[in-house]
Amino acid sequence: MGKLEETINAVEPIGEELYQTTQARLDNLTKPKGSLGRLEEFARRYVAITGKESPKIEKRVIYTFAADHGVAEEGVSSFPKEVTAQMVYNFLRGGAGINVLARLVGAEVRVVDIGVDHDFESQEGLIVKKVAKGTKNMAKGPAMSREEAIQALEIGIGLAEGAAAQSIDLLGTGDMGIANTTPSSAITAVFTGEKVENVTGRGTGIDDETFKRKIEVINRALKVNQPNPQEPLDVLAKVGGLEIGGIAGLILGAAANRIPVVIDGFISSVGALLAVRFQSRVKEYIFAAHRSVEVGHRAVLDGVGQRPMLDLDLRLGEGTGAALGMFLIEAGIRILAEMATFGEAGVSEAEE
Amino acid sequence: MGKLEETINAVEPIGEELYQTTQARLDNLTKPKGSLGRLEEFARRYVAITGKESPKIEKRVIYTFAADHGVAEEGVSSFPKEVTAQMVYNFLRGGAGINVLARLVGAEVRVVDIGVDHDFESQEGLIVKKVAKGTKNMAKGPAMSREEAIQALEIGIGLAEGAAAQSIDLLGTGDMGIANTTPSSAITAVFTGEKVENVTGRGTGIDDETFKRKIEVINRALKVNQPNPQEPLDVLAKVGGLEIGGIAGLILGAAANRIPVVIDGFISSVGALLAVRFQSRVKEYIFAAHRSVEVGHRAVLDGVGQRPMLDLDLRLGEGTGAALGMFLIEAGIRILAEMATFGEAGVSEAEE
Repeated sequence: MGKLEETINAVEPIGEELYQTTQARLDNLTKPKGSLGRLEEFARRYVAITGKESPKIEKRVIYTFAADHGVAEEGVSSFPKEVTAQMVYNFLRGGAGINVLARLVGAEVRVVDIGVDHDFESQEGLIVKKVAKGTKNMAKGPAMSREEAIQALEIGIGLAEGAAAQSIDLLGTGDMGIANTTPSSAITAVFTGEKVENVTGRGTGIDDETFKRKIEVINRALKVNQPNPQEPLDVLAKVGGLEIGGIAGLILGAAANRIPVVIDGFISSVGALLAVRFQSRVKEYIFAAHRSVEVGHRAVLDGVGQRPMLDLDLRLGEGTGAALGMFLIEAGIRILAEMATFGEAGVSEAEE
Repeated sequence: MGKLEETINAVEPIGEELYQTTQARLDNLTKPKGSLGRLEEFARRYVAITGKESPKIEKRVIYTFAADHGVAEEGVSSFPKEVTAQMVYNFLRGGAGINVLARLVGAEVRVVDIGVDHDFESQEGLIVKKVAKGTKNMAKGPAMSREEAIQALEIGIGLAEGAAAQSIDLLGTGDMGIANTTPSSAITAVFTGEKVENVTGRGTGIDDETFKRKIEVINRALKVNQPNPQEPLDVLAKVGGLEIGGIAGLILGAAANRIPVVIDGFISSVGALLAVRFQSRVKEYIFAAHRSVEVGHRAVLDGVGQRPMLDLDLRLGEGTGAALGMFLIEAGIRILAEMATFGEAGVSEAEE
């Protein structure tokens, strides 16, 4: 049995009892019952996932997976393909959106080159785990082999295992890859059964002509490859991306190791949907950071089974939304840890 | 001319040009244009309000206004009236929800006794500006005199002026007052013309019987008092609350002094709606932190003209949502200040 199958089998249901006892503790704090709404939900689910009754979130890491896409040659993005590697350098110098927001919430950004078409020198903050120098053009055949798909997934799993060994308290996912909304919409169409035009958006901001071409390219990719919706590995290999595989693997590995994981926007959520198709129990380990502007995101989140925490019209990716989501989980945990009870504060309780 | 009228006249439109130049700067950062959505909106509006092109948010203060309500004697809340004073002590000891969330975002909480039916000893963190020991029962006559209403408003204005003198960069509002969703729903019904049952919720969590009584009490208060919707001072005096007046004054004062102000949930938003009725220009100075569970909140936010930043099923008040909203404004400002431009990072721009 390989690492992928082992990990899928290792995911357990989250602790239902801890969920209940944590809510009882929240109900004893000096506030009307349930009045902190979703912050309470985040706290009790964090506890139920980790099994830690009085958790402290000390170490937060966002893994931003970067990869190139052969389908970029079809002209589906407004940015040239070189931007993937250029943005990796920007991440490593700390100048990108994800760096700013991760600093704000005290999270470390680890950039994973899982398939960029560029040779990076070894440097701090960069993890080189290159499966290939980008995928092949899915409009002409499979984006990658099944072996490469498994490799991408197992890289993500390995990173989650490493995070568990380092006692990371909260994980986040992010992506960088010019043209990667194209495979993401393709995967969404396959899994949800929706028409391509209903789950395809404008990515970084393409014009009408490019948008029409993008839909046509995805339809062609689906026709050429005939991915089997019942087999997530087949879908990933045929119309996926290496960073999407890495994200799916990280989520599977996080769940198997009981680490809560905050997923970013559309691309990360597609990774999460893949993970859910491998093992539906991972749903409970996932916090969906936000609802992206990308039109396909809603259907993906339905499949992941998580209501987004934020709705801020974001569509940058990189893990930026995940960083903001980490703050809200922290808020819930602090409420649980720091608020006074009715008894401690001498406050009268509600008459029931 | 009194302080209230002076302040109303002192509110200027925010700087449209700065709004545009800030967006141009945001568009030059290494991300697709507009891809950080509302974070960009928060940043450009903060700049346009303050006139500071490269702002840093160093001092954040949340004013939590506490007051009692004569209408509590009608049995409209599930908590006894004593809880208002008990919660003030909880705030001062740092054990309440607002304390936890304010600490998390680096905000100072200043509790304002503007009308609690209890004598507090002088202590750090408490500002005693008591107009009266609670309002009168609005179901039987006006909640307060016009003089008291002006006094409450001018206390809020004075606090905003003090904040300006202390170079506070960002203000937040909060409330504490058992039964205060009752006057808030009354004010909402008056200003929006909605039926009372459409803008009345369950506050801290009342049962069906209490809920029916609450609606009946509000209808009685409106009938007895006949507040004039064209005259905000009349509305505040007849069916308002002292903390609501204080919040409205703080918002007017913040706008007059060009300090951005984050409003919390239903009660704070009703204060904001009052402020808007005195001077519609204040809309642009307001950040609406969240959409509360309270059913009347939506109509109030429409009147305030601001889309809420968060939707987390909160209904605690105190300023808890405002604290979370402060974090998102900070996120926008950091993006503006810290992200690299395309030129600095050597990243290719989109083809247009």
